[in-house]
Amino acid sequence: MSDIVQEFNDYRQKMNDKLLADNNKIIKRIFNLDTNAYMEGALDVKTKELLGLVASAVLRCDDCVKYHLETCYKEGLNKEEVMEALSIATLVGGTIVVPHLRRAYEFWEALEEKGQGE
Amino acid sequence: MSDIVQEFNDYRQKMNDKLLADNNKIIKRIFNLDTNAYMEGALDVKTKELLGLVASAVLRCDDCVKYHLETCYKEGLNKEEVMEALSIATLVGGTIVVPHLRRAYEFWEALEEKGQGE
Amino acid sequence: MSDIVQEFNDYRQKMNDKLLADNNKIIKRIFNLDTNAYMEGALDVKTKELLGLVASAVLRCDDCVKYHLETCYKEGLNKEEVMEALSIATLVGGTIVVPHLRRAYEFWEALEEKGQGE
Amino acid sequence: MSDIVQEFNDYRQKMNDKLLADNNKIIKRIFNLDTNAYMEGALDVKTKELLGLVASAVLRCDDCVKYHLETCYKEGLNKEEVMEALSIATLVGGTIVVPHLRRAYEFWEALEEKGQGE
Amino acid sequence: MSDIVQEFNDYRQKMNDKLLADNNKIIKRIFNLDTNAYMEGALDVKTKELLGLVASAVLRCDDCVKYHLETCYKEGLNKEEVMEALSIATLVGGTIVVPHLRRAYEFWEALEEKGQGE
Amino acid sequence: MSDIVQEFNDYRQKMNDKLLADNNKIIKRIFNLDTNAYMEGALDVKTKELLGLVASAVLRCDDCVKYHLETCYKEGLNKEEVMEALSIATLVGGTIVVPHLRRAYEFWEALEEKGQGE
Repeated sequence: MSDIVQEFNDYRQKMNDKLLADNNKIIKRIFNLDTNAYMEGALDVKTKELLGLVASAVLRCDDCVKYHLETCYKEGLNKEEVMEALSIATLVGGTIVVPHLRRAYEFWEALEEKGQGE
Repeated sequence: MSDIVQEFNDYRQKMNDKLLADNNKIIKRIFNLDTNAYMEGALDVKTKELLGLVASAVLRCDDCVKYHLETCYKEGLNKEEVMEALSIATLVGGTIVVPHLRRAYEFWEALEEKGQGE
Repeated sequence: MSDIVQEFNDYRQKMNDKLLADNNKIIKRIFNLDTNAYMEGALDVKTKELLGLVASAVLRCDDCVKYHLETCYKEGLNKEEVMEALSIATLVGGTIVVPHLRRAYEFWEALEEKGQGE
Repeated sequence: MSDIVQEFNDYRQKMNDKLLADNNKIIKRIFNLDTNAYMEGALDVKTKELLGLVASAVLRCDDCVKYHLETCYKEGLNKEEVMEALSIATLVGGTIVVPHLRRAYEFWEALEEKGQGE
Repeated sequence: MSDIVQEFNDYRQKMNDKLLADNNKIIKRIFNLDTNAYMEGALDVKTKELLGLVASAVLRCDDCVKYHLETCYKEGLNKEEVMEALSIATLVGGTIVVPHLRRAYEFWEALEEKGQGE
Repeated sequence: MSDIVQEFNDYRQKMNDKLLADNNKIIKRIFNLDTNAYMEGALDVKTKELLGLVASAVLRCDDCVKYHLETCYKEGLNKEEVMEALSIATLVGGTIVVPHLRRAYEFWEALEEKGQGE
C-alpha cells in the first residue's frame, strides 16, 4: 500500500520550506507561534496535542488532524485516548465530522503499522 | 470511467466497520442516532433526506452530500427536486458552496448512470 | 414579557429597508433571490422553509433561524415537525447547535403565544 | 454588577428542561450523550473538559465556552491552564476567536469572584 | 440613542487590557501580530482593512466587523466602497451573512453620525 | 509534472456548463451575480479579486482560492501582494488555514510557470 504518512509529511515539509523561504513575516511568525504553543507549560505536551487534535477535528481540517495524530503518536498517546478525544470532537462538531473521523482512523492505523516496522 | 459511487461506498463501509469494531461507545451511539434520525416520524423520509442533504451542503461536507444524494436517489427523489434543495443550500451558504455543487452534480449523474445499468 | 417576535421583525424590517434604499445592486439582487428561492417549485413551500430552517440552524445563525421559524409557523407547520427538522440539524451540526436550539424553542413558543392572542 | 454566571445558568436550565420535556427522542439522546462523553474514561475529566472548551472556542460558541469554563472551574483547573488551552484555540482558530476570548475571560473572572464569595 | 461605537470600544479596550496584563505569551504575540498585519506593505492600509473587513464578515464575527468598519472609516474609505466589499462578503458567504450586514450597516451609520458631531 | 492549473480549469468549466444547462434559475442567477460582483465599481478589480481571495481562504475553499489566484494573476497582481493578502487570511482564520496556504502557494507557482511558458 502507499505510505500515506510519508506522503503527507513530504508534501507538508516541501511546501512549508517554500513558505518559510518566502519573505512574508506574518506567515513566518505564525509558523513560529505554532511551534511554541504546543510546548510544555501549565499544561503538558500530551494534553496540548490532544487539544490541537480536537480543535483540528471540529474545524474539519484533515491535514491538521493528521499532523496532530502523528505528534500524539510520537508522544506515546494510545489509540483509546486518541479515539476518546475524537469522540468528543464528533459529538461537539456533529456527524459532519464523521468522514474526517474515518480518515483519521485510517491515518492512525498507518502510524501504528509504520511504528511496528521500525 | 471509474465508478465514483462504488469507490465512495466501499471506503465508507470499510472504515465504518472499523470504527464500529473499535470500542468507543460515544462514536457507536452517534452512528446509531444517525440511523434513527432519518426514519419516518412527523416528517417523511424524503423530506428528512433533503434536510440532511442541505445541512451537509451548507457545511460543505462532500462525503455527507454524497451519502444523502444516494439515499435521496434510492428514495425516488428526482433531479429537479434535489437541485432545488441544493439551490437553497447555495443561496444560504454562498458561492463557496459552488465547488461542492459541481461535485454533487457529478455524483448525481453517476447515480443515474448506475441506476440505468441495473 | 417583552415581545421577542415583534422586536426581531421591527429591527429586521428597519435595516432591510435601509439596505435596499442603499445603492448596492449585488445586495439588492441577493435579497431578491432570497424571496424567489423559497417559492413553490418542484418542492412545496413547507419543505423549502424546513430546508431554510435546517441550513440556518447548522450554520448557527439565530436571526436566520428566527426568520424561518416564523415562516414555518405561518405556513402551518406544527411544533413536532419543526422540532424534528431541528433535531436533524443538531445531529448533523453537533452539540454546538444546542444553544441555538434553546433560543429557537423560546422563539417558537413566542410565536405560538402570539398566534393564540390574535 | 449583574451576575452573568447565574443568568447564564438560569436560562440554560429553563430551556433545557423544556427541550427535555418535549417529545423529540433524537434531542434527548444527544443531551444524554453530552453527559456521558465528558465522564472519566481513558482520559480524565479535567482533560476532557479542556477538550470541550477548546472545541467550543474554535467553533466560537459563547454559551458552550461558558458551560465548559464553569465545569473546568468546578474541576479545579486554574486560570493559567484554562488560558493556555484558550491560547491554542486562538492560534488554531485565528483572531476571529479573540472576541470570544474577551467574553471567556470576563466569565472566568465572574466564576472566580463568585467562588470567593461562597 | 445609546452610543454603540463607544460601548463597543470601551468593552473591547477593557478586556484587551486584561488579556494583555495576563501572562499568556501566545495570546500577547497574536495581539502583536494583529497590529503588524494591517500595516502598509506591498498592499496599502486601506486595501488591508477591507481584506480584514471581508474576512470578518464571511466568518460572521460581528465584533471583528465593527473593529474593521471603524478602521476603514478612520482611513477615509467611504460608504460605497465599504458596501461593495460587504456585498462580495455576502455573495461568497451567502444569505447567512445578511443579519451581520444589517448590524454592520447600523454600525457604519453610527460611525458617520459620530464623525459629523466631532 | 501534471498541469494542476489546466486540470482545475477543465473540471470547473465542464461542471459549470452542466450546471448552467440544467434548469435551476436560482443557481443560474447566483452564477450571474458571481460575475458581476467582481467588476469594477467603487473598488477596482484588483482589490475585489483580493477580497474574493481572502474570503475564500478564511472559508477554506481550495477551489475558490484557486479561481481567485488565477484571476489575481491575470490582473497583474504580484506574488508579494497575494502573499500579503493570504497572510491576513491566515491570521484572521488561524493555523487551520495553513494547509490551504500550502496548496495556494503551489498553485501560484504553477500559474507563474505556465505564464513564463506562454
